[in-house]
Amino acid sequence: MCGVPREAGVKKLNDGKSSKSAGKTRVSKRTAADTQTIADLVAANRILYAQSVLDGYGHVSARHDLHPNRFWLSRSMAPGLVTADDIMEFDLDGNAVDARGRSVFLERFIHSEIYKARPDVMAVVHTHSPGVIPFTVSQVMLRPVFHNAAFLAAGAPVWDIRKEFGETDMLVRNPAIGKGLALALGDKSVVLMRGHGDVVVGPSVKVAVFRAYYTDANARLQSQAIALGGEVNYLTAVEGAKADTINLQVVDRVWNLWKMRVTAAPPK
Amino acid sequence: MCGVPREAGVKKLNDGKSSKSAGKTRVSKRTAADTQTIADLVAANRILYAQSVLDGYGHVSARHDLHPNRFWLSRSMAPGLVTADDIMEFDLDGNAVDARGRSVFLERFIHSEIYKARPDVMAVVHTHSPGVIPFTVSQVMLRPVFHNAAFLAAGAPVWDIRKEFGETDMLVRNPAIGKGLALALGDKSVVLMRGHGDVVVGPSVKVAVFRAYYTDANARLQSQAIALGGEVNYLTAVEGAKADTINLQVVDRVWNLWKMRVTAAPPK
Amino acid sequence: MCGVPREAGVKKLNDGKSSKSAGKTRVSKRTAADTQTIADLVAANRILYAQSVLDGYGHVSARHDLHPNRFWLSRSMAPGLVTADDIMEFDLDGNAVDARGRSVFLERFIHSEIYKARPDVMAVVHTHSPGVIPFTVSQVMLRPVFHNAAFLAAGAPVWDIRKEFGETDMLVRNPAIGKGLALALGDKSVVLMRGHGDVVVGPSVKVAVFRAYYTDANARLQSQAIALGGEVNYLTAVEGAKADTINLQVVDRVWNLWKMRVTAAPPK
Amino acid sequence: MCGVPREAGVKKLNDGKSSKSAGKTRVSKRTAADTQTIADLVAANRILYAQSVLDGYGHVSARHDLHPNRFWLSRSMAPGLVTADDIMEFDLDGNAVDARGRSVFLERFIHSEIYKARPDVMAVVHTHSPGVIPFTVSQVMLRPVFHNAAFLAAGAPVWDIRKEFGETDMLVRNPAIGKGLALALGDKSVVLMRGHGDVVVGPSVKVAVFRAYYTDANARLQSQAIALGGEVNYLTAVEGAKADTINLQVVDRVWNLWKMRVTAAPPK
Repeated sequence: MCGVPREAGVKKLNDGKSSKSAGKTRVSKRTAADTQTIADLVAANRILYAQSVLDGYGHVSARHDLHPNRFWLSRSMAPGLVTADDIMEFDLDGNAVDARGRSVFLERFIHSEIYKARPDVMAVVHTHSPGVIPFTVSQVMLRPVFHNAAFLAAGAPVWDIRKEFGETDMLVRNPAIGKGLALALGDKSVVLMRGHGDVVVGPSVKVAVFRAYYTDANARLQSQAIALGGEVNYLTAVEGAKADTINLQVVDRVWNLWKMRVTAAPPK
Repeated sequence: MCGVPREAGVKKLNDGKSSKSAGKTRVSKRTAADTQTIADLVAANRILYAQSVLDGYGHVSARHDLHPNRFWLSRSMAPGLVTADDIMEFDLDGNAVDARGRSVFLERFIHSEIYKARPDVMAVVHTHSPGVIPFTVSQVMLRPVFHNAAFLAAGAPVWDIRKEFGETDMLVRNPAIGKGLALALGDKSVVLMRGHGDVVVGPSVKVAVFRAYYTDANARLQSQAIALGGEVNYLTAVEGAKADTINLQVVDRVWNLWKMRVTAAPPK
Repeated sequence: MCGVPREAGVKKLNDGKSSKSAGKTRVSKRTAADTQTIADLVAANRILYAQSVLDGYGHVSARHDLHPNRFWLSRSMAPGLVTADDIMEFDLDGNAVDARGRSVFLERFIHSEIYKARPDVMAVVHTHSPGVIPFTVSQVMLRPVFHNAAFLAAGAPVWDIRKEFGETDMLVRNPAIGKGLALALGDKSVVLMRGHGDVVVGPSVKVAVFRAYYTDANARLQSQAIALGGEVNYLTAVEGAKADTINLQVVDRVWNLWKMRVTAAPPK
Repeated sequence: MCGVPREAGVKKLNDGKSSKSAGKTRVSKRTAADTQTIADLVAANRILYAQSVLDGYGHVSARHDLHPNRFWLSRSMAPGLVTADDIMEFDLDGNAVDARGRSVFLERFIHSEIYKARPDVMAVVHTHSPGVIPFTVSQVMLRPVFHNAAFLAAGAPVWDIRKEFGETDMLVRNPAIGKGLALALGDKSVVLMRGHGDVVVGPSVKVAVFRAYYTDANARLQSQAIALGGEVNYLTAVEGAKADTINLQVVDRVWNLWKMRVTAAPPK
């Protein structure tokens, strides 16, 4: 639940100061590297939809290769339908640099504030993935049950918007809330959003997609392991760190499979 | 389990008084707005089948745009196969205005009585959706675990046909039972039917479909959250009300995705 | 796990007496009604595979329309691939009347003995359906949680082959075991087979398929209802009997949908 | 998570001694039997992916028909995309006999060490199958709940890499770890790998695939049976042994179905 028609949302949310800064910005030139990143971003949208990590909502962004203060994110639309033409450029205040009438996600501040806080992050995924949501409203912490989700060994905190912002519409609808979320993420790869979903980050689009997928997969597996009863033998912090290192080297294997599947035929 | 062949059911169920009133009615003229509503209604049937909210049973209706005492509902058939030609017009006593030999749903009184009782309702969905049914026979109440299902924060009562009508065949087979169901719905968006399914209403076909889908999704997520053990941190009433308002503004995003999927190819 | 290559199984299992009686039989002539029954039987195999009630194993039979001591059953093969040419005719001792070299199911005695014991039964489905199997090894009885599975209100006993036959390979591999199973079924519509699957019967192929599907669906829903904790409000015996009557009148609705799906394209 | 690019992994892992022995080996000639085995191996990869037993990771191997000290395994890639050209030949030290620049699975020692320890094994499957993983981190043992998984009656031990090798990256990345795993497997058909997945072996590719599929299916069913509460009535050791014997005779039935499905159209 992460966007509003431009008419309803952008004008109200782009306050005067932001509008001014937006007026001064220009769309950055696209290099060959940018074209590749945008192609990856389009694939990421389609893959996460095909894998049921995203449904009609949720979004994926990538930091600009050359301009670290810019990022790419689709216009407000269902991820499963995104094409390269739908990718827009934003600054780190969440302003669209070149809107051309396209509507924007209300929750673009998830992305802008994380890019501000985490220079190492090159891609951000926001999902309502069904495996994860139960953990956002539970006292049970998400922990790694298998090596594919080794990145969870570093921790996956639950951020409750109500703690700092009271009873809201649950959305990350301004920079202040986005900053709160980024703070909760800290130096981790995943932060759960209570009653909402999660945010997963990575050093590349591929890795962020890999982590979003395996966060959901691990959540389902952990739920099943808990349901069996008795103690669950999670990966240790050391095992997690070691396994995550090797995971990063083999992401292409599953990425290539996923990409082939979404590019073989148009989305349906 | 919501219809009977016309031969078996309509004659018996259309008592004398109803037949007379049916004799006096005429099919209302279809305007451009009607054509759009009917197109949405056909899409709604196909979407809810494609999303496994409906299987071979269940039905969706829409109130007539210009004649609030009329509504549209398909003839008695599997929702996944409905076309515009299958849409019939009914009055609020559940009489088919223009049957032309087509069989009608035995449970059309779900729709007629809710339209009578709730002038704000423009669309009604009746499902046996698998996520929801366990909650219809449980003491555990359905409550919102994520913002997409914020409308549940207002409550989703369980109606037990046995309380008022004794041991029946479980079907809403006459206006009196329909009225009892409408009373249980009250001013809510969802009412659960014990041992049967649910009814979901909305101010438009799109919103009713959205709510039917996310009622089922939320039920599954709540089941998983409960299975983890410990307290579940549900949305508060205020959060629910606020999130529901914003949800209504972004329904088109997922509707467009769903509609594209069911219109890209004929149903299979 | 219900068949063996003809070489391995038939010779051994067709004892002298059966072979003799088989020698005397002739394939009955096929009438138009037979052709329809066989078409339904082929559709039933494909439907139950498409709906994941059957996987590579399990089988479906229909009693001969004119010769109540004969029934039709496919040769030993995966149900999802069955065509009319694969349908064989058997007598009530489980002998293939016209084998023509085709291999037969080792467990054909499930069918023959039930047709012997239950003159009202016109179709038999044997499945390993995943929703049901947990109930075959549990002390929890399968009971109806929704009206589509109303037929379960009459009871769905668990038959444990070990009680009468000791530690076997779990298969209904001869008439004596088949008779024991038929006895456990009694006058019910469903009998569960411990550590194996179930058998579902009906007054027609359509109804048997309907019941096999909703037995599995109900089992899944009951499991979920139990997992929520607290008492489950099952259909009463009277409600079950009444709802089952109406169910039988609307089976065509879902049958037509299912049949369209499996005949629209060849099985894959 | 079972492979690395050749650059990253092979050189480091192919120590001097192994390299020398690799230098002396030649690719064995392929006979008609080999061609059939390789075709089965390709089908096995695709089938296990289509059945969701494998995702983008995991691998399947077959022992060479004529040279029991050799085995076939695809290059490091997603199983769902494997073709005959991707099949490489390895010796029992895990050296690629004819790499031709193709990258190899880091975890090929799973295969080599099991072929060394178990002369009866002709095929090995390594999966991260979602039904099984919860049992790898649980105190609850995987046991047979239905006859299709009768092979589990002999036991399915859990191997914890940490016991012998401390806190690792969880991978079977050298012969010593592979030997430890093979020891844990013993004379069984299945060994579970804590926090990782499982290994399933058989006397042929078909049987290993059958067992990998039904290990996963059984795990899901057992989880559901446990969730119902109360005692679970598992197959006894004798029942398991008897049922496994008959299972081996009917593997072709489901194999033919699965193979048809993956060869009807190219993988997507």
